[in-house]
Amino acid sequence: MDGDRIEEATLANSPADEISHLALDIGGSLIKMVYFSTGREEEQQQQQPIGKTQKDGRLLNGRISFLKFETSKINECLDFISSKQLRCSRGVQHSGFPASDKNIIKATGGGAFKFADLFKEKLNINLDKVEEMSSLVSGANFLLKAVPSEAFTYVNGQRNYVQIDHNDLYPYLLVNIGSGVSMIKVDGDGKFERVSGTSVGGGTFWGLGKLLTKCKSFDDLLEMSHQGNNRVIDMLVGDIYGGVDYLKIGLSSTAIASSFGKAISENKELEEYKPEDVARSLLRMISNNIGQIAYLNALRFGLKRIFFGGFFIRGHAYTMDTISVAVDFWSKGEAKAMFLRHEGFLGALGAFMNYQLVKEFPNSNPLVSDLTDNGIIDCCVQVSS
Amino acid sequence: MDGDRIEEATLANSPADEISHLALDIGGSLIKMVYFSTGREEEQQQQQPIGKTQKDGRLLNGRISFLKFETSKINECLDFISSKQLRCSRGVQHSGFPASDKNIIKATGGGAFKFADLFKEKLNINLDKVEEMSSLVSGANFLLKAVPSEAFTYVNGQRNYVQIDHNDLYPYLLVNIGSGVSMIKVDGDGKFERVSGTSVGGGTFWGLGKLLTKCKSFDDLLEMSHQGNNRVIDMLVGDIYGGVDYLKIGLSSTAIASSFGKAISENKELEEYKPEDVARSLLRMISNNIGQIAYLNALRFGLKRIFFGGFFIRGHAYTMDTISVAVDFWSKGEAKAMFLRHEGFLGALGAFMNYQLVKEFPNSNPLVSDLTDNGIIDCCVQVSS
Repeated sequence: MDGDRIEEATLANSPADEISHLALDIGGSLIKMVYFSTGREEEQQQQQPIGKTQKDGRLLNGRISFLKFETSKINECLDFISSKQLRCSRGVQHSGFPASDKNIIKATGGGAFKFADLFKEKLNINLDKVEEMSSLVSGANFLLKAVPSEAFTYVNGQRNYVQIDHNDLYPYLLVNIGSGVSMIKVDGDGKFERVSGTSVGGGTFWGLGKLLTKCKSFDDLLEMSHQGNNRVIDMLVGDIYGGVDYLKIGLSSTAIASSFGKAISENKELEEYKPEDVARSLLRMISNNIGQIAYLNALRFGLKRIFFGGFFIRGHAYTMDTISVAVDFWSKGEAKAMFLRHEGFLGALGAFMNYQLVKEFPNSNPLVSDLTDNGIIDCCVQVSS
Repeated sequence: MDGDRIEEATLANSPADEISHLALDIGGSLIKMVYFSTGREEEQQQQQPIGKTQKDGRLLNGRISFLKFETSKINECLDFISSKQLRCSRGVQHSGFPASDKNIIKATGGGAFKFADLFKEKLNINLDKVEEMSSLVSGANFLLKAVPSEAFTYVNGQRNYVQIDHNDLYPYLLVNIGSGVSMIKVDGDGKFERVSGTSVGGGTFWGLGKLLTKCKSFDDLLEMSHQGNNRVIDMLVGDIYGGVDYLKIGLSSTAIASSFGKAISENKELEEYKPEDVARSLLRMISNNIGQIAYLNALRFGLKRIFFGGFFIRGHAYTMDTISVAVDFWSKGEAKAMFLRHEGFLGALGAFMNYQLVKEFPNSNPLVSDLTDNGIIDCCVQVSS
């Protein structure tokens, strides 16, 4: 497991946080939450977060934090929101935020439709729906333009952070790997088209993985895959060709000819395979497939850069490595796979951006500053007067 | 199961066939065999198969038959060849065939390398290796040009046979779905390039299917998938969006958002799912994925026609339907998926063509005539003098 993964759960035990704005991305498998808080009250006094006034509003210091829940355990999410005693849900006008935010939470993903009644009934909160693709794009654009060291390539086990030139960002392909996968051609702020996708995504890895390995959780499955060896179950070119390469078409003997193909001829039941090996084959099959379809779509529109986001990746070294190798292999080195530190929160961040707190983020304007180690973004938002 | 599937096993009980030429395609999962025979001896006398003489050789009536074995049971294949007492392997010069054929069998696929020593040792037969992609292309071109009613589209449960204009056949995309998948751009006889492929193929369906359902065979798994309902395990758009469509991006509520995604949230073990439903989800996932990648490659090279071959398809209605729908969906109706009656035998036929028995097949030359119901091709081959 790559050490640089965002630990999104760390803030759950900070009840003193004053959360003013919260946004949700309620997907098929996971609920992603992004919230802005002004920190603990004692810190607030030192930092004097509420301060400077600009001609079009006030600046407010704080931080953007990240949290996730399983969609099937949505009550945990409701309890969290309730326990945080969101100022907006209590109807108290806080920190100069306009009263129009009262009892409203920006939300995206299918669950914004599916669970709207539940939020109203349990918390008296209205979900203000933000379109899903639009949210993903807003979130990605925000991260790429406002957060330093957000994007990186992953080659030979190394993260190489990429300096994004704001004037040379577009167009790019955004591949969001959630339960399913969406591929979006992004041409600018609010300018995008969902050009492709695949149903073979994170939900497939987790769902098939659960059936095959009895894993307890997504992270458990990822951890298992880290320990496994896919060659036990995958049919390699060398297995078919008797150990030799198939050089004529550029396939080495160790290339995978058929994912899970070795299971055909071996007289082994599922229980006789190590779950780690099964998890590894599954992860490699899905990562490679997504990398290939992404590349073919990038090629179609002449896009040199592909950013991969979504909760499937989880900063997992082997996943990123497989995707990177797939893009490199199929593009013959022409295209580059890039990853994002806040990969899983694009949609939630995009819904959050819909509050219009942070209006712009030019190079010269330090509205958003560095990251903390656990991925929290220290920032200063601009509140309309 | 579609009723028009080639029953390739029917000839196994005709020991009186006089097999003169036999070719093999030894893949990772299956051995495909094609052989030319002059029929039973009593029939021969009536038909007088050996007859007409042309200036560059003699014409010989007979039939091309098709047979398959599992690669893991290669001894069954060796026994069959041995039992058929191939004239060529007995060193008897038969029917005017040149003696150079003695003890040589044309073979393609990785197994032509892997099992070369085994054939030599057990049967004293040398495998004359024919390159795999080249064989697939030769086989497909032969079928498309020489065999009437070979190609068809599959729409709404209906086969529609396609009349191939020999002058307007190229270029096309050939997608061969064996254990793995090869995608080949074909520009003419012997003019081709393997442009893509995927490891998610027939071996994945069979291998994963075996682990998940304990099916006894590939056909058993296909039959189960025919009875199943993929919506039990796949996460649909409607499952995420609370029953509504996601019209903005053109996805109906019944579209699959995440293959196997529903298995995440349900507290069900593998054993609690019906194997039929699992098989159906698996088949749909793989067929759809192949259709999508094939379309993206056809688009890349401006190819309007995609021919799908390989043993994965097996004339299975649901497989063809899913592939057809995938190509239609992703191409917005621009590209057409087409299938071949002898889908599984492209490589073996191509290796067979390498004997140079049938030298050309112009429209006007009835070298190859109609099919019998079980896919046997009645034909007349030209033997060099």
